[in-house]
Parts: sequence; C-alpha cells; structure tokens
Amino acid sequence: MLYLVGLGLSDETDITVKGLEVVKKASRVYLEAYTSILLVDQSVLESYYGRSISIADREMVESNSDEILRNAQNEDVAFLVVGDPFGATTHTDLVIRARELSIPVRTVPNASILSGIGACGLQLYNFGQTVSMVFFTESWKPASFYDKIRENRAIGLHTLVLVDIKVKEPSLENLARGRMIYEPPRYMTVGQCAAQMLEIEDDKREGVYSRDSLAIGAARVGGSTERFVAGTLEELCSQDDALGPPLHSLVLLGRRTHELELQYVREFAVDKEKWDRIWNADYGKQQ
Amino acid sequence: MLYLVGLGLSDETDITVKGLEVVKKASRVYLEAYTSILLVDQSVLESYYGRSISIADREMVESNSDEILRNAQNEDVAFLVVGDPFGATTHTDLVIRARELSIPVRTVPNASILSGIGACGLQLYNFGQTVSMVFFTESWKPASFYDKIRENRAIGLHTLVLVDIKVKEPSLENLARGRMIYEPPRYMTVGQCAAQMLEIEDDKREGVYSRDSLAIGAARVGGSTERFVAGTLEELCSQDDALGPPLHSLVLLGRRTHELELQYVREFAVDKEKWDRIWNADYGKQQ
Repeated sequence: MLYLVGLGLSDETDITVKGLEVVKKASRVYLEAYTSILLVDQSVLESYYGRSISIADREMVESNSDEILRNAQNEDVAFLVVGDPFGATTHTDLVIRARELSIPVRTVPNASILSGIGACGLQLYNFGQTVSMVFFTESWKPASFYDKIRENRAIGLHTLVLVDIKVKEPSLENLARGRMIYEPPRYMTVGQCAAQMLEIEDDKREGVYSRDSLAIGAARVGGSTERFVAGTLEELCSQDDALGPPLHSLVLLGRRTHELELQYVREFAVDKEKWDRIWNADYGKQQ
Repeated sequence: MLYLVGLGLSDETDITVKGLEVVKKASRVYLEAYTSILLVDQSVLESYYGRSISIADREMVESNSDEILRNAQNEDVAFLVVGDPFGATTHTDLVIRARELSIPVRTVPNASILSGIGACGLQLYNFGQTVSMVFFTESWKPASFYDKIRENRAIGLHTLVLVDIKVKEPSLENLARGRMIYEPPRYMTVGQCAAQMLEIEDDKREGVYSRDSLAIGAARVGGSTERFVAGTLEELCSQDDALGPPLHSLVLLGRRTHELELQYVREFAVDKEKWDRIWNADYGKQQ
C-alpha cells in the first residue's frame, strides 16, 4: 500500500494520530521536501517518529517515482507531504503511477494552507482560484497570476497567493554548465510578493489592483508563532520584519466582503484608520 | 485560553497529535455538532480522548457562547470542530467574542472538505468559490448557488457544492407551535443535490449547466470507505447506492480542465465512454 500522509502546516505534532500510526509501521518513509516545508528540521521529525526518513526531491518524485513505489504491492510505503497530500500536482502523478502498477493507495488528509488561511478571518467561501508567485529574474517575470486575479476580482472574490520556495535547485549558471551544485534555500516573503505584484500592475496598467488594494500578509499559518499583517499592497512591501521567518503567503481581498470579515481582520491592520477608510470606500459591496 | 481544535474528516484518529494533547488537558471540552459530523459517535470520541464532551448545538454557540468561554481567561477550553475550525462562519463569531473578553485564542488546524476534496483528482487550484445547497421545501428553494456557479463556470473553474445536514432542528410545524421537538437527523445525498440543481436550471433556463454537465459525487472524503462517482448531473441523480452513507458532497466541473485531471477522474466514471465523449467535446479547453 502507498500511503500519502499529510503532515499539516507547522511542526512534528501536526501529524494526525492516524498518520503517525502509518509512519511508525511503514517499511519505508519518504518526505517530499520541495513544494513546501515544515517549521522544524528533518532530524526533529525522525526522532519524533522513531524512524529514519528519505528525502524525496523533485528529481526523485518526478523522474524516479518507481523507486518510491518499489514493492509497494507487498509492503507499506509512507510518502509524507507538508500540508495536505493533494495540495500539489506532483502527487496526483504519483497516484496515477501507483495505479498503473496495481498498488493500492490510501490518503491521510491534513490541514492545507488552502483551508488554514481561514485563520486570517476572511471567509473561505469568498475565495476564488488560488494563484502562485515565482521569484522573478531579470528576464523572466511570469505574470499568469495577473489574469487569474482579474477573474477573481471581477466577481468580488479574495485571492490566495502562494509564494515561491527554492529548495535544492541548481542556479541557472550551474545548470547551463551541467553542474549539479545547489543554491541555498530561498523563501519568498510577503514583501517580495507584493512588490512583484505591483511591478506587473505598473507594467500592464490594466487596473486589476493598485498600491491601495487591501491585502493580508500571513506567516507560519497554523503554528504557535502564526502572524497576520493587514494593509495595502504598498504597506505590505515593507512588513517583512513584522511578519518574521518563512513560510509566508498573501491574500488579496475581493470587494465582496462581509462585515464580520472586517471586524476580524482590522485587528491585524498596520494602520487601522487607513484600512477603515479604504474598506468603507471600496469594499463590503456585492460586486 | 480558547483552543479551536479541528478534528479532520472521518474518525477519532484524524485528530492531530497536538490537538489530542489539548483535549486531554483542557478543563472543558465542547464539540460543535451542527455544521458537520464525523463518521463516529460522540461515545467513541469520549472513550478515545478519555474525556467527557459537551455537545454545543447551534443555539448554544450562537446565543450562549459566554457559557463556552466562561473563565477561559484562566483555564483552557477546547472547542472541537469537525474538519478545520475556520470552515464555518460561526467560529469566527466565537473568536471575536473571545477577543472582547480578552481571552487568548489558539487554533489547531486540520483537514477540511475544502482541501480534502482534492482526493477526487481535480486540482485545487482550479476551484472557484464554494457554494452550499440546502434542502428545498415546497415553498422555499433558495437558489443563490446558481449565480455563483455561473460566475465560476464563466471563468472555467470547478465548484464544490457542500450539502445540507439537519441535526437537532425542530420541524417547521413544531417551530410554529413553539414546541422544541426535534426531527431525526437528515443528510443530503449527491442524488438529492444533483436533482435540486437540475430543478433550478429547469426553472431558470439560463444554461449555467445542463443534464450533461460533468460532475463528481463524493462520499466520506478522507475516510477508509471514501468513494467517488463521476458522471453527468443526470447520472448522479441515481448513484446514491453506489456512494453509500453520508457525508456527501458534489463537484461540478469547470471547462478549464487539465489532461492529468481527466486521467485521474475517469477511473471513477459511471460510464467511461460517455464521460470521454462529453469531456472531449466540452472540456479541457482554456476558455
């Protein structure tokens, strides 16, 4: 059996009791460690589980998944995923491959940032499609998020923006020279995300959002040091110190907001007076 | 401290290790038991936790929350919620009230149907806003879901339809007579949901979807008896036996589908040939 086990969002104790039982009895344990990270190290997990863990990097999961699935017809393999196993596309691939090999699959769900973000006080019902933000380079500034945010905002919905992490990735220069030397890990901050969003708006000038659009920066959602900061996109460009260490994510508000959301969220506002002024002028309206 | 503890989707072992620690040491333990249910009884939870649990019904949470929060400035109160604590509006209310009383609040996240539904094979990134379907009566057929589905479908997105449950609700007749006599619990099925959706389309005739629109019926998501059935809305009207006991939910597909989603989902199709034919004609297009 292949078990896809969600680890939740924060530390070693966010695994479910069911998930922990699976990890303790599986023949092999893999940790998918490139689409997201926990706030604790592998060694903490290993000592907590009483098991050694193999790190499954992108290369292994995407090109060498048969090693992960080896003999899973006859023994139990646990594939651990930060958050919920179905947060990222890659794991669907793995399940399809397991099916082809007649390996039964079971999922142990857990908290995902897609639902955990509800802790910021915005109603999950009012979110549209989720978008991703990657690190821009001088020559590569993918902006497909812009059109998706437009679609969400046109119908008044909030947008969750998931930000890039780079773990064990070769630099472009090293890749070009065929050297597998990896860069140190990088985690995008809310400030970088907000700045890249404004860069694209400045470039396209289609008014999908502006410097004064309301947003919430989130850090370490679901952990004991969880932190939210609410403000305009411009304000959020300089709130990384207040938010602290990774992981970060950002929510751009839609206009179809509810009074209850305002009450909850304004507690987190950098500048409550400004927040109220913009909210009253532009938000809380059906469309 | 007020702890909002998510219980996950299925049974007593879906609680996180962190959540279980909170439950074991809290002074009082409440279970919110009207927006969703686990697949096991209260007595199973009580014996697993080694604690007695007070059931918090809608009346208590919405009108008598100060009883739940009593002395939580000085002792720990655990408020257990099926799924994730921020799935339903009610709990935001409770947190706002706790803040007014200067009670610190901590959340223990868990799997929610909003992310757990990813197990059906559709990418969570491609979902629009979530809608709710209530039991229709002869005179009351609320159809606000219809316009929201239109908005999602106009931009090619999937829609998760959460279906009604009625737990400890007085019948209209008893309510009118001022008698607090409760009806037996009722859980809407995928078949009832699909039929109500088609009833509203037949009534409005705005072509938001049709009998041939593709959808997935889901039952007991995240549990060991999890079941998915894929088919047209018309087919799903009569698949309740295949799906089995509650809880059910339904996903109406958007047209912006990915080849990987097709591969995964067709495994669940009632009639694979029909599924492929409609998919190839109407889906998989980037709008």
